[in-house]
Amino acid sequence: MLSEAFVTLVTNDGYALGALVLAQSIRQVGTKRNLVVMISKHLSNSLRKILEINFDEVILVDEFDSNDTEHLSLLSRPELGITFTKINCWLLEQYSKCVFLDSDCVVLRQIDDLFEREELSAVPDAGWPDCFNSGLFVYRPSKETFRKLIKYASEKDASFDGGDQGLLNEFFSSWGSSDISRHLPFVYNVTSNAFYSYLPAVTRFRNDIRIIHFAGTLKPWHLTYNPKDEQLSGNLNGQNDIQRELLLSWWRIMYQRVWPQLSKLNQGESIGS
Amino acid sequence: MLSEAFVTLVTNDGYALGALVLAQSIRQVGTKRNLVVMISKHLSNSLRKILEINFDEVILVDEFDSNDTEHLSLLSRPELGITFTKINCWLLEQYSKCVFLDSDCVVLRQIDDLFEREELSAVPDAGWPDCFNSGLFVYRPSKETFRKLIKYASEKDASFDGGDQGLLNEFFSSWGSSDISRHLPFVYNVTSNAFYSYLPAVTRFRNDIRIIHFAGTLKPWHLTYNPKDEQLSGNLNGQNDIQRELLLSWWRIMYQRVWPQLSKLNQGESIGS
Ligand SMILES: O=c1ccn([C@@H]2O[C@H](COP(=O)(O)OP(=O)(O)O)[C@@H](O)[C@H]2O)c(=O)[nH]1
Ligand SMILES: O=c1ccn([C@@H]2O[C@H](COP(=O)(O)OP(=O)(O)O)[C@@H](O)[C@H]2O)c(=O)[nH]1
Ligand SMILES: [Mn+2]
Ligand SMILES: [Mn+2]
Repeated sequence: MLSEAFVTLVTNDGYALGALVLAQSIRQVGTKRNLVVMISKHLSNSLRKILEINFDEVILVDEFDSNDTEHLSLLSRPELGITFTKINCWLLEQYSKCVFLDSDCVVLRQIDDLFEREELSAVPDAGWPDCFNSGLFVYRPSKETFRKLIKYASEKDASFDGGDQGLLNEFFSSWGSSDISRHLPFVYNVTSNAFYSYLPAVTRFRNDIRIIHFAGTLKPWHLTYNPKDEQLSGNLNGQNDIQRELLLSWWRIMYQRVWPQLSKLNQGESIGS
Repeated sequence: MLSEAFVTLVTNDGYALGALVLAQSIRQVGTKRNLVVMISKHLSNSLRKILEINFDEVILVDEFDSNDTEHLSLLSRPELGITFTKINCWLLEQYSKCVFLDSDCVVLRQIDDLFEREELSAVPDAGWPDCFNSGLFVYRPSKETFRKLIKYASEKDASFDGGDQGLLNEFFSSWGSSDISRHLPFVYNVTSNAFYSYLPAVTRFRNDIRIIHFAGTLKPWHLTYNPKDEQLSGNLNGQNDIQRELLLSWWRIMYQRVWPQLSKLNQGESIGS
């Protein structure tokens, strides 16, 4: 039997910190699956080495970019063209089934039951819920699908947001209306906008949350953490108490499980900026 | 055969303006169904009379209130306890099937195909999309269901948000995971948070939008409209171009189709405050 894996993507050092916390958080709750990280050649050597310790496989992939400044400006996220690189995950045919996770996710509870789902399973996007959020999806690696995606991606207006989410939603366009089992519960990919839009639901379902996804411009590694008093500093405007608590959980894993590895390699350098 | 109806609710004069625009917008796109408005005794007599002209049925109902200040404070909407009154809509057994619509909705395109759906069909909430947004739902009137809802509503913590949405989601709790045909496309109930959270999708699907739902604290009737230059004034902070355009569409209907009726009754009074 082919095995199964969690897969993430890292094209630069900031997101590498995210991937390390993600890997540690998955190990902490326990998994029987492999952890795979796809990296691009722009990653520094030292972080690549640490990824090799924390993941079962580190795979070098080509960078793709949508170069679609027009649509990306609607998102106010010019940097997200590079997320087209994500579709390399369909090349991992050594696995029969995978779960892709953005590297800005942290896992709070076991998620191995995701492998009972079929391609393409994902969580509705809090924002336009007929689309899925592409920060987490269950898929079957297949060079055939990869080729179709590449062909699709090269067409004009392939992605309505200039990033991978617009692309994958156009490609898997029946997701919204065809099969409820492909709709994963929102607790598998809780994004920050839920906290602004519907706080009572966050509170109601808080103990069921499996994955927090720090989607949006503020990433946990943009902040600074003081381990002495467990205080965060940086641009925390508009973050409510639950969000601060979740950012702290990310930083606790960072400090306790990732930082010791980093400091062995980079004595004296600071993290979190 | 029993007939079918669109149903809305109005407990005070502001929402009555909403209901009038809603009714006109449905007539404008065309419908074969009845229009019904449930009102409470607090509605002024003059507005009641105008509702009688615009709706096929005006039905006096009892006000229910959750009186749940604790949960409502999480929503920052202390006024929404009264929305428990909505469940009176299950009493309308003269109809075999109904579509409930909040009175802060405006219909842009035909929606009669909603009657092909079964109870309980609704749109995912942009915020916590495992919940449905209770601003629009397809249901079957039934005194039996009404009694169960009333019983349920009287229990402690019946609603996790203190309003009808938290109540109905707890009651119809299998909605999220059991049947894709009960998940209506988001275009049937596009709420304002979509405009902040995922503008590229709004832009992509804009021409498919059937219903705009002015959910949240800013209601169109809180603004003032100048018909000479088609300018809106009032608290428009943070409203982007598409949102202003949609608020204007509401006001055009108000000015062209509702205002002439109002001004006959209340010569000289101002509207929109
Ligand atoms: O410069 C970048 C941008 C993104 N990513 C990867 O692509 C994912 C999607 O981007 P992001 O999480 O920033 O998008 P958001 O979830 O905020 O929409 C990230 O989690 C990373 O795995 C990356 O490696 N380098
Ligand atoms: O004081 C009130 C509050 C609400 N409503 C009715 O209940 C619905 C739900 O309330 P609202 O639309 O304000 O909630 P939101 O959609 O903003 O969450 C309204 O559209 C009205 O039909 C009402 O009649 N009187
Ligand atoms: Mn992300
Ligand atoms: Mn409403």
